[in-house]
Amino acid sequence: MFVYQKNLQYPVKIRNVNPRLASIIISQYGGPDGELGASIRYLSQRYSMPYAELKALLTDIGTEELGHLEMVGAVVHQLTRDLSMDEIKKAGFDAYFVDHTAGVYPTAASGAPWNAASIGVKGDVIADLSEDLAAEQKARVTYDNILRLSDDPDVNNVIRFLREREVVHYQRFGEGLRLAAEKMNEKNFYTVNPAFDR
Amino acid sequence: MFVYQKNLQYPVKIRNVNPRLASIIISQYGGPDGELGASIRYLSQRYSMPYAELKALLTDIGTEELGHLEMVGAVVHQLTRDLSMDEIKKAGFDAYFVDHTAGVYPTAASGAPWNAASIGVKGDVIADLSEDLAAEQKARVTYDNILRLSDDPDVNNVIRFLREREVVHYQRFGEGLRLAAEKMNEKNFYTVNPAFDR
Amino acid sequence: MFVYQKNLQYPVKIRNVNPRLASIIISQYGGPDGELGASIRYLSQRYSMPYAELKALLTDIGTEELGHLEMVGAVVHQLTRDLSMDEIKKAGFDAYFVDHTAGVYPTAASGAPWNAASIGVKGDVIADLSEDLAAEQKARVTYDNILRLSDDPDVNNVIRFLREREVVHYQRFGEGLRLAAEKMNEKNFYTVNPAFDR
Amino acid sequence: MFVYQKNLQYPVKIRNVNPRLASIIISQYGGPDGELGASIRYLSQRYSMPYAELKALLTDIGTEELGHLEMVGAVVHQLTRDLSMDEIKKAGFDAYFVDHTAGVYPTAASGAPWNAASIGVKGDVIADLSEDLAAEQKARVTYDNILRLSDDPDVNNVIRFLREREVVHYQRFGEGLRLAAEKMNEKNFYTVNPAFDR
Amino acid sequence: MFVYQKNLQYPVKIRNVNPRLASIIISQYGGPDGELGASIRYLSQRYSMPYAELKALLTDIGTEELGHLEMVGAVVHQLTRDLSMDEIKKAGFDAYFVDHTAGVYPTAASGAPWNAASIGVKGDVIADLSEDLAAEQKARVTYDNILRLSDDPDVNNVIRFLREREVVHYQRFGEGLRLAAEKMNEKNFYTVNPAFDR
Amino acid sequence: MFVYQKNLQYPVKIRNVNPRLASIIISQYGGPDGELGASIRYLSQRYSMPYAELKALLTDIGTEELGHLEMVGAVVHQLTRDLSMDEIKKAGFDAYFVDHTAGVYPTAASGAPWNAASIGVKGDVIADLSEDLAAEQKARVTYDNILRLSDDPDVNNVIRFLREREVVHYQRFGEGLRLAAEKMNEKNFYTVNPAFDR
Repeated sequence: MFVYQKNLQYPVKIRNVNPRLASIIISQYGGPDGELGASIRYLSQRYSMPYAELKALLTDIGTEELGHLEMVGAVVHQLTRDLSMDEIKKAGFDAYFVDHTAGVYPTAASGAPWNAASIGVKGDVIADLSEDLAAEQKARVTYDNILRLSDDPDVNNVIRFLREREVVHYQRFGEGLRLAAEKMNEKNFYTVNPAFDR
Repeated sequence: MFVYQKNLQYPVKIRNVNPRLASIIISQYGGPDGELGASIRYLSQRYSMPYAELKALLTDIGTEELGHLEMVGAVVHQLTRDLSMDEIKKAGFDAYFVDHTAGVYPTAASGAPWNAASIGVKGDVIADLSEDLAAEQKARVTYDNILRLSDDPDVNNVIRFLREREVVHYQRFGEGLRLAAEKMNEKNFYTVNPAFDR
Repeated sequence: MFVYQKNLQYPVKIRNVNPRLASIIISQYGGPDGELGASIRYLSQRYSMPYAELKALLTDIGTEELGHLEMVGAVVHQLTRDLSMDEIKKAGFDAYFVDHTAGVYPTAASGAPWNAASIGVKGDVIADLSEDLAAEQKARVTYDNILRLSDDPDVNNVIRFLREREVVHYQRFGEGLRLAAEKMNEKNFYTVNPAFDR
Repeated sequence: MFVYQKNLQYPVKIRNVNPRLASIIISQYGGPDGELGASIRYLSQRYSMPYAELKALLTDIGTEELGHLEMVGAVVHQLTRDLSMDEIKKAGFDAYFVDHTAGVYPTAASGAPWNAASIGVKGDVIADLSEDLAAEQKARVTYDNILRLSDDPDVNNVIRFLREREVVHYQRFGEGLRLAAEKMNEKNFYTVNPAFDR
Repeated sequence: MFVYQKNLQYPVKIRNVNPRLASIIISQYGGPDGELGASIRYLSQRYSMPYAELKALLTDIGTEELGHLEMVGAVVHQLTRDLSMDEIKKAGFDAYFVDHTAGVYPTAASGAPWNAASIGVKGDVIADLSEDLAAEQKARVTYDNILRLSDDPDVNNVIRFLREREVVHYQRFGEGLRLAAEKMNEKNFYTVNPAFDR
Repeated sequence: MFVYQKNLQYPVKIRNVNPRLASIIISQYGGPDGELGASIRYLSQRYSMPYAELKALLTDIGTEELGHLEMVGAVVHQLTRDLSMDEIKKAGFDAYFVDHTAGVYPTAASGAPWNAASIGVKGDVIADLSEDLAAEQKARVTYDNILRLSDDPDVNNVIRFLREREVVHYQRFGEGLRLAAEKMNEKNFYTVNPAFDR
């Protein structure tokens, strides 16, 4: 089970609103490679993971990503406080606003609501960890792109923290994959399952 | 942020596998009225909730639902351990198995992956709480239906616990709605926003 | 069955085109809380509704919402007549135009086509009516937001009429829920189904 | 606007329940080529249809399809009344039942909720009528397949009526297309728009 | 099987970038009536097509559409090379850029990822060919709209070629439908299947 | 552009029909990790791939996957020829049959139509190749599962060929990733982009 702790993992204090930027950053809330997908992917993959170390890794990172989801939500929220209708229209934020006002809804920047089709749970050690490595790289690119698009230091500060964490997760999943390959070798399994390769 | 605590909110100990039942219960993992939708709905609605008591209520219930998601995942997992191909085929579990093996994937019993279109975040106190009341009733019905379909006491024990929690949440959201109505009256707002009703 | 009557429920006469506003208002045609969802939700819930008064209520409101769908379509249509390519591009209406020209397609303002995942039919009196109460509140907020974004009196006139109807429907569904609770009591059923609560 | 008339267009009186058959027939309620899609397609295409005769045709057929939607819903409902849990499980109806009990929800037989991606509104006379001709043929095939799968005379009676209506609609849309081609010739337009073909 | 040939079917040489136009044209890559849908529709319908001439027609056109998909991708790519962040933001291309940088992703202009719900494979000669006729008309309209929105001669040159091919395909499918009707008559079948019409 | 060659990459000759198995194998046609997704993913990623060798690799594998898509379609087709209604119903194939007869439609075994949300095109060398490595592993698992579920030697023969190709692709993408990392080092770029890591 999960226990909520009142502080964010890293503080979010944004001084200036910017609804356009919010409508881009929301992709890390509910977009194809965002934090919602990350947390649900890892927390779901745990059940069929046969090795305790890797199950713990998935739990650990999955729980941290829930905290990142919260942080991205806070960024979006702070960028959209007390907007005038004029600011909303100029930023093209009206298409989001009409259905969600200034609420935080799990959608991609493109407008597509989050869909579990964007995550994979294959019930296979190697495939699931490969999925996770790809996921971390895709999230890293999304943060890169946000940094390219944003010049708000209050935002970039947070985004840089989140981006760095994805890099760390990528490395940890890399170690996890090596560990898995070793363990499978011991039991005479390979990345390409020899039971089917003979 | 969230801290993981190793125990489940309520213990899950299922002695007999039952892939058919697993493929029904998974709807409370990733179905239209399941625990994934519940937790993401409440945790997302928090940001635009203007009253501290209600923000706390959403955080509190949203976090608990994450624990329920975990419990439902554990039920599905325990019902699908060490299956033979024969058991899988007889149960019609092959359509799930081909893409997820015995992993736990956020899907409805119908086979549709979870889609955020099934939750509402409107950025409006009354609408969001009404959505939550409906959500709890819909989750309650899904648990009712699982209880109607299952005769495994190990499973039903857990489902009854989860169902009871939804009833409690429904009551708490009902109190929340009353509280919100009062607060809005103080500031001269009504359920039907008088700014537009004049 | 349904009979078409040539007049709209409330007249729509819009003098000035405004493709940007059309692309926002279309969310009440095919968006998550729009009139398509409303009518299909209520007309679908009728079948399993056990009480004649409530079945009639669903039929009645569901049929009226079909007429509202038609009105919203008329608003969108009148706001997008005889546009120049320049008007289309300046309004960002090109993303819609390329696939639908000036046709009226059931989509959200966000660009997501209407999806039945956004409505609930649970086959349960209390859950379905709670869903309906939430739906009316969510539609009301969407109309509020359109009124916030639009300053065209010809449009707002129509939107105010539609918004008012949602408030009336909300009240009628509220009465419906009270009626249902009473009826269920008579037969010794409660909101929380005692068959499962013992 | 629409007026509800209490009788069905054609009577539905089914004596024997059959949840398996219901779960197939529901595709004509909310499946890719079903009556929901038909009615929304035609009623949506009306706005941009430039010729009064064709606008009337779309209104006329679209309204009739709403009545067919109602009839298909009635078939599904009557096939799923008073089921025992045993009947539900044997028929594989449990995957539907868990989320909708015996309510009628707009889904395909495959389990995918209805999605407006399955209909086209192009705002172009020829394209829209071609879409409609295709739609009627696809609906006709679905009814053919239901007739192949069902041996319940009470059901087939209704399905044959509905199938026949699709054939009539196909012919009427064919006449509509011929009419449109003539009208466009008068104004020096062709099926292949000469403005772009020079 | 397919063999790749290094040249495009028709050359794409675009001198000036234009991210806004790219974000519109991409609908012919991954939108509801685009080339991805076209190729997959025809190549999938082949299997159940009973007549060799029509199977060959589907293979032929389906393969050509794969080449058109490639051409549209090339247009989108060339319109989005070496963009500055400023150009990206001004064009509203940031919503696409954040998730795909300058990669080519199968999405509609509206932002909805391509969904197979937008194509029909009915396993019926008449229905499938009617679907194909409609598809070609819908693609033609999309190209018409691109030509209306674009004033880049390098782009329009390519789009005109692609549009013309759709018109040719429409005519070929028309001949295919006449051929099918004749063949079915020989075996005593009609457009309206007499086995069910007696 | 693509040229069609009449033979399959590997012959498909299945003697016995088996609609249940067909409804599982179709996931490699239109499921989350199937051949449609594979080919579109690689052929789409080509445009933004900066290195000629890797562009060629994507074209090469993407084109081969189109041939695999064709082979999987042939397997599904041959497993569903000349079925009786009785065979269809016993196999639970009726839910597919009602909407597609014996046509081959791009759907997952679960019933969800193919959705581009299941593929990633990030416009970033490392992320795209990581996505591809994961994709090949996920496809490999799906083939493993088909081999676990099927005991038809005619089918397994083909599936084993396809599975082996995925393993080869995985290795080639692994080499591609190493090549990319080297190339990026030359230009002073790392897997974790130092421009953002300083």
